[in-house]
Amino acid sequence: MKKLAFLLAILFIGTTLLAAKGLATPALLQKLEAEGKVSPQTQACLACHMRVTPGIVMDWLNSKHALNPPANVEKLYEAIGAGPQPIAKKFQNYKYVVGCYECHGMYKVKDRVDAVNHFGFKIVTIVTLQDCSQCHPKEAKEISWTWHAFAALNTNLNPWYKKIVKYAKDHNEMDMLPPVFKLTHKGLITWQWYKDYAKALYDYLNGKPVSAKWMKYIKLFGTPYDYDFKNIVSPLYPASGGLNTTVAAKVGYKPTIGAVCAVGKWNYYEQISNPMSHPMFKNAYAYHACYECHGTLVVPYKTETKMIKGFPVTRMDYWGWPSNGAGRIDPDGSLGTCTACHPRHSFSVAQAREPWTCGQCHLGYDHPHIEIYEESKHGNIYDANKEKWNMEAIPWKVGTDFNAPTCATCHMSTIASPDGSQILVKGTHDLRARLVWDQMHFFTYPKADYPDNVQLAVIKGVSVLTGANIQKAVSGGFKVIPGPKAGELAFPRLATIKYYGALAQKRAAMEKVCTLCHSTQWTKNFFRTADQNMIDYDIVAHYAFDLLKKAWKEGIQDPHNKLDEVMEVEWYYIWHHQGRRWRNGAFMMGPDFAHWFGIVDTVMEALNRMLGYYQMAKEVKMLQTQLQALAK
Amino acid sequence: MKKLAFLLAILFIGTTLLAAKGLATPALLQKLEAEGKVSPQTQACLACHMRVTPGIVMDWLNSKHALNPPANVEKLYEAIGAGPQPIAKKFQNYKYVVGCYECHGMYKVKDRVDAVNHFGFKIVTIVTLQDCSQCHPKEAKEISWTWHAFAALNTNLNPWYKKIVKYAKDHNEMDMLPPVFKLTHKGLITWQWYKDYAKALYDYLNGKPVSAKWMKYIKLFGTPYDYDFKNIVSPLYPASGGLNTTVAAKVGYKPTIGAVCAVGKWNYYEQISNPMSHPMFKNAYAYHACYECHGTLVVPYKTETKMIKGFPVTRMDYWGWPSNGAGRIDPDGSLGTCTACHPRHSFSVAQAREPWTCGQCHLGYDHPHIEIYEESKHGNIYDANKEKWNMEAIPWKVGTDFNAPTCATCHMSTIASPDGSQILVKGTHDLRARLVWDQMHFFTYPKADYPDNVQLAVIKGVSVLTGANIQKAVSGGFKVIPGPKAGELAFPRLATIKYYGALAQKRAAMEKVCTLCHSTQWTKNFFRTADQNMIDYDIVAHYAFDLLKKAWKEGIQDPHNKLDEVMEVEWYYIWHHQGRRWRNGAFMMGPDFAHWFGIVDTVMEALNRMLGYYQMAKEVKMLQTQLQALAK
Amino acid sequence: MKKLAFLLAILFIGTTLLAAKGLATPALLQKLEAEGKVSPQTQACLACHMRVTPGIVMDWLNSKHALNPPANVEKLYEAIGAGPQPIAKKFQNYKYVVGCYECHGMYKVKDRVDAVNHFGFKIVTIVTLQDCSQCHPKEAKEISWTWHAFAALNTNLNPWYKKIVKYAKDHNEMDMLPPVFKLTHKGLITWQWYKDYAKALYDYLNGKPVSAKWMKYIKLFGTPYDYDFKNIVSPLYPASGGLNTTVAAKVGYKPTIGAVCAVGKWNYYEQISNPMSHPMFKNAYAYHACYECHGTLVVPYKTETKMIKGFPVTRMDYWGWPSNGAGRIDPDGSLGTCTACHPRHSFSVAQAREPWTCGQCHLGYDHPHIEIYEESKHGNIYDANKEKWNMEAIPWKVGTDFNAPTCATCHMSTIASPDGSQILVKGTHDLRARLVWDQMHFFTYPKADYPDNVQLAVIKGVSVLTGANIQKAVSGGFKVIPGPKAGELAFPRLATIKYYGALAQKRAAMEKVCTLCHSTQWTKNFFRTADQNMIDYDIVAHYAFDLLKKAWKEGIQDPHNKLDEVMEVEWYYIWHHQGRRWRNGAFMMGPDFAHWFGIVDTVMEALNRMLGYYQMAKEVKMLQTQLQALAK
Repeated sequence: MKKLAFLLAILFIGTTLLAAKGLATPALLQKLEAEGKVSPQTQACLACHMRVTPGIVMDWLNSKHALNPPANVEKLYEAIGAGPQPIAKKFQNYKYVVGCYECHGMYKVKDRVDAVNHFGFKIVTIVTLQDCSQCHPKEAKEISWTWHAFAALNTNLNPWYKKIVKYAKDHNEMDMLPPVFKLTHKGLITWQWYKDYAKALYDYLNGKPVSAKWMKYIKLFGTPYDYDFKNIVSPLYPASGGLNTTVAAKVGYKPTIGAVCAVGKWNYYEQISNPMSHPMFKNAYAYHACYECHGTLVVPYKTETKMIKGFPVTRMDYWGWPSNGAGRIDPDGSLGTCTACHPRHSFSVAQAREPWTCGQCHLGYDHPHIEIYEESKHGNIYDANKEKWNMEAIPWKVGTDFNAPTCATCHMSTIASPDGSQILVKGTHDLRARLVWDQMHFFTYPKADYPDNVQLAVIKGVSVLTGANIQKAVSGGFKVIPGPKAGELAFPRLATIKYYGALAQKRAAMEKVCTLCHSTQWTKNFFRTADQNMIDYDIVAHYAFDLLKKAWKEGIQDPHNKLDEVMEVEWYYIWHHQGRRWRNGAFMMGPDFAHWFGIVDTVMEALNRMLGYYQMAKEVKMLQTQLQALAK
Repeated sequence: MKKLAFLLAILFIGTTLLAAKGLATPALLQKLEAEGKVSPQTQACLACHMRVTPGIVMDWLNSKHALNPPANVEKLYEAIGAGPQPIAKKFQNYKYVVGCYECHGMYKVKDRVDAVNHFGFKIVTIVTLQDCSQCHPKEAKEISWTWHAFAALNTNLNPWYKKIVKYAKDHNEMDMLPPVFKLTHKGLITWQWYKDYAKALYDYLNGKPVSAKWMKYIKLFGTPYDYDFKNIVSPLYPASGGLNTTVAAKVGYKPTIGAVCAVGKWNYYEQISNPMSHPMFKNAYAYHACYECHGTLVVPYKTETKMIKGFPVTRMDYWGWPSNGAGRIDPDGSLGTCTACHPRHSFSVAQAREPWTCGQCHLGYDHPHIEIYEESKHGNIYDANKEKWNMEAIPWKVGTDFNAPTCATCHMSTIASPDGSQILVKGTHDLRARLVWDQMHFFTYPKADYPDNVQLAVIKGVSVLTGANIQKAVSGGFKVIPGPKAGELAFPRLATIKYYGALAQKRAAMEKVCTLCHSTQWTKNFFRTADQNMIDYDIVAHYAFDLLKKAWKEGIQDPHNKLDEVMEVEWYYIWHHQGRRWRNGAFMMGPDFAHWFGIVDTVMEALNRMLGYYQMAKEVKMLQTQLQALAK
Repeated sequence: MKKLAFLLAILFIGTTLLAAKGLATPALLQKLEAEGKVSPQTQACLACHMRVTPGIVMDWLNSKHALNPPANVEKLYEAIGAGPQPIAKKFQNYKYVVGCYECHGMYKVKDRVDAVNHFGFKIVTIVTLQDCSQCHPKEAKEISWTWHAFAALNTNLNPWYKKIVKYAKDHNEMDMLPPVFKLTHKGLITWQWYKDYAKALYDYLNGKPVSAKWMKYIKLFGTPYDYDFKNIVSPLYPASGGLNTTVAAKVGYKPTIGAVCAVGKWNYYEQISNPMSHPMFKNAYAYHACYECHGTLVVPYKTETKMIKGFPVTRMDYWGWPSNGAGRIDPDGSLGTCTACHPRHSFSVAQAREPWTCGQCHLGYDHPHIEIYEESKHGNIYDANKEKWNMEAIPWKVGTDFNAPTCATCHMSTIASPDGSQILVKGTHDLRARLVWDQMHFFTYPKADYPDNVQLAVIKGVSVLTGANIQKAVSGGFKVIPGPKAGELAFPRLATIKYYGALAQKRAAMEKVCTLCHSTQWTKNFFRTADQNMIDYDIVAHYAFDLLKKAWKEGIQDPHNKLDEVMEVEWYYIWHHQGRRWRNGAFMMGPDFAHWFGIVDTVMEALNRMLGYYQMAKEVKMLQTQLQALAK
């Protein structure tokens, strides 16, 4: 019987695991409630929401939140060797699991403008990074130091934010800005000024009194949405080149265009020489393009209150909502969005480790990281073996829980030895920690230390686009030592890049991950050959850009709008699309991306096309000159 | 011991589930046969076919068909709240499971020409939508109302079918046509005329007598294959532009080209000015391109009979077979192909719910729905969690069986509450039911109510390409209310589109699915910003098309062949490729598709290129004019 | 109690299976060591490497190697009906499992230059195809007959290898070359000469004496890396066209370009007229592009010895390492890389059967086999059902282990009947065995019998690029019988291609796989319509290439560098990119690839663009002539 009991014990474990394979059922909720694990407030929420939005309630029921009181997170911090990371006082001895009310009702910033009355509870719709930071302080801090938190301010909100930064600098009101230079690598970066601005704006829009100081700001800055992006031409909005084209005017094309107004009917006719100037054209793609990855500025602008079952229920109307973009800016001044990668309401680590979670944004023409991963041997092993992996284990045990890296493994994860006894690699949400190069912009230089490109530019004079003054924003450095010459029989071939200081640490941090599976020689040689691509690309990029500058100078292209003529667009492709694919493909084992979608598209397609266009345009220009001479 | 028994019970369930994870083994067949569940006829089939085509026999063994007598489908209709859906009489008390004979031998239309003698049984090779409709009447009806059933007639068979529709209209023989205007949303639409035509054609091709009436049709219409698509230039066959190019003749290019005839040998030399005019060029790509998704017209043209083991076995030779294209037209007059999505011979609902089942056809340049899905948060959650899902459950319980939608969920599925007690969303195979917009053609208008574009054009004068007269084919309507102007600080920004009638119902039907997981504000705002893209796209499309019309008028492009010159091709890309990606990307959460592959490709790539070409061509034209003037 | 025992037995199986779902844990290693299954030498390796490179140790622990002594492979050969395949003597009665030492220490070629002292063991870092052949003789032989083994010599190493082949031919030293014409389809092909050359080269580079004969070779051939690919323009390196562009010189563009040397600093300025001529430009993309799929020549060039724990540990430095490219050439003269598809260190058959294993290299612009598979019904069924499949079973049972093919199934696998009692299809690693056509090059002809394109060209005068003399390298043949004419009502339509000899056998071998699930008519019709695409493509390709030749002749394009002008690049796209997609899409059920990415890109995009450019360039040329005439 003992043997039987033993056998049964084994079987029981088997069955338990098995049960764990499926999604949770509503029965689990009944069990949790019966056991007193769910707070009375959350029970109140669930009573309606299980009917109103069953999908997200069930999602939560599938989460770790539904099963754990807040303080359990401390065990996770221990498990990953992150020492004590004190959570918010109110949650330290909190006895209920993390449910609806705990996040939507026990938010961090008490005076945020968008907290509303919901059946007598004061709740917020949007749970922000600061709210999550109450129990996940390390991750919140680290992500706030990254481009992810600044993904909106650096890009789609850049023109609006730049006005604010310039004003702050010119008027020495630096408190208006997120304290990036002070807090990077130290504390949680938030944008306190926006919290107050959101409040003032809400009051203004609802006819309430606003102080002179804040009225001034409102007049100066409005919101990023007010101009619907008219008349901005920027590589950050590359469609803007064509939408504002100057070529049409040059060739005398001024059509009269209507806008659709009903089934089979058009109205609002306007004579325009480019699409942007049509008053009904609103650049609405931005909401489903830029904003979906980069994030919005969430603007609370109106409330409505209804009585439901005798209780007042207020709804806050937001503009810029919904958004799960990585750099969403919330009405409490939070920068960054946890749910971009740990989506609603399961907040799962397994989900965040899944390659397509990163791939949601990191894909396509300009940064096909997911496609490169899928093509890599790493991705291939993942595909063949993922069913055997443990995506939930904390820490993540190399070889036992996974046998090839996903994106998270190399860039973020805490990795333990196969038996779990040792932490081999310390984890971080600071995605810069294991990366040396900026592979996104014109030429070759390392990533800046600070995540706020606008403050870097306006306050420090650093351009991450062209690399101007980049040394002011980089710690550590590198030195290029040329390799043997062409024709010389000598090894190792290629240049050697020697790193020092912070850059050496970053490269070492990544190599540490590689060497969990690969030999030192394998790893060093891999990076040596990849590094030379940074030099090679840079030569090609200068070659191409100089050609465009020559064309601008000679009047073959017109630099007024830098994104609406053949050579301008091809140059954009070179640095923004194909040059990135080349470099990313080299560093992440995507041969098709290094080659076909990379250097081949760069030089066979784009550079050849620039040269071909230049040649033809020059011949036509010469004909025009000769003909004018003749005609005289 | 009681506890032990309980434990064992639990374990047993676990193990059973586990066993269910693998594919069936041949032992299951032995079991089913031993239990008398398989009809004697089907047993006879299996006796040979387990050896001859073991793959499909095993596929069937893995299906629900192998385990259930026909009448069990009634329980499924109950489960999805679809009320009684009477199945064919002969199957109502049928005691065997659905096997080979039940589908291939108990077909619906008894006089179809392609039923042949097979070891003494009269069987058909092709099981048609009408055959499936005997037990699945609701689904067969609904799918017959959609473009899926008309996918061949609307596109690859369009030129042939248009001749028939014109004839029917001109001679007032409307019985020749599928009764789309009568039966859409009412009954099963089939093409009875084709059933008789297939018979007449078969007789003609085999030297049997054919009545004068049918001979007339045969002479007039032949089959769609007879011309091998020579000399048709149409956006439906976009390669046709280049294959029939008129530019070569203009520049005096008339090469003599051979066709391959053996290893390293060429023959059949012809002087041609475009590839289509070579007699050995047959447009065979169509069979592996258009036809694979859209479907073929199946033409039975010959029989061969052999004696095998003393029995006569007749094989019908078909042209247009194999095909699993969605709109295949079968010799019994069926329109539409169930196996396109429930493939052979497992006919699985799980398979049809898998995103790549839709993605087989809905991918690529012109409608990258699967790529958009993969990139969306929905697809990402699916990827990370699908192992925990129950893809078989009927109805599908939100949160319990799945925690993110696949294509089917939003567009088709019956969805139940997490505990299965309530149907929250009624399912349908009518894919129009939850969709407002036509996002495929030139400009902005809703989807037509009827699935037959050719009858719409010829009979009703409605063009779904340009939207001409579209209001005649749309129920309900919409009204555009412009939003705040650029520069105005006001919310909500953007235009509002108000729907009424059937269009309002369609939008509400989709929103109902969204709100299972998302709040009302989330849902409304999402559609508000997406809707503005319909207006924006429309402005850009008119702007681009007007430019092409100007170029045609000025002789810069030649409208004779509308698909063989630079600006013509770019315009095709705008409406057919990039404009769809823009719109689809916006509505389905594919930011990379809304942006890079969408509006950026539309305006930075295609529109810039149109303008750039126009500018250069105009300068050359002007030089020519000036030179001529000088030369005089 | 009996029933209970039975139940428990079932449950136990269930649980065992369940346990098998996860990855192995370190406990398994302890168990294997305790049971005496691991050799003492391997135990010594593991003692350190479990700490030093835990990832690969765990990978090995998850492999069949960790559980089986070498001779167990004989059971597999029996199971797939491959008769006795004698393994190396030393392994025939070897009692330990296949561990570190068995592969890295018991290598086949004893005198290879890169065997080094490692804690007293003489080991090699790189385990080669010859090493694997000791226990897997059939697979090693077969793969050595394929382009996979010659993937580096045929492409990225082609210019270097061609010098050697020419020398061997001119001096009648044929022993220098791999004996492809003698051993293909017979024995294991290796490159013995390179083994000795690697030794001589190592001695030379390390200042040791080298015989006059080998010094001559070293002076003549060096290594493929020495010139860093300067000044080669070849379709094998398509970026080379633009990198060596001649257009810049023609239009007078000679910029002075620096190379990056530190953070924000540039140096090494040179005036150049193309990027390749910059001395710091090194073509390093090749290491992360060509080499990653095609493989490197591994050159051992230096050793370093350290004392670790009192033992000498020598490291061999390699150039061309790491590489898992399919055609890697190892210092023991091996051609081909087993780990390209059975990656390190799990060597799994399941992995190799996974579609993305092939897709790692077979993807993208020029051979999107994985994308086509994903889009095909086969790929779709795989996606929906793979969790139920048994990817490990040997042989692979149709319907029971899998219900749709992956790449391996059609091209390589041994396939058994559903109950495993019969081998229905014999497996092979010779990927030519089931393939008729060369779908990669200019025109239409079958695949050559031999895998070494350079020897074919230099020794036999056969060009696989243009098909010149291809009949000398093809066994068997085909004959094209034209089908009915356009306008004729007759079936079957399209041409019929009749195969004879070896080509007929190859086609039959593939059809045998198809007919496991599909009827004979289905299969024959599928190939009939696909075959016509070979004829159609060939006509279009000749039409396009003749146009380019005309442009060269008329001075509209300059044939000096054949890859740097508009029409040249478009022609490259036609045969190398789009023409392949068209043909591959047709044969592998990828309608989007046959159509949009195939024929449409071929004729609507590339051919139209060639014609459009030709037309414009000709008009400009005519203006120039007319103007010159006027100016006189």
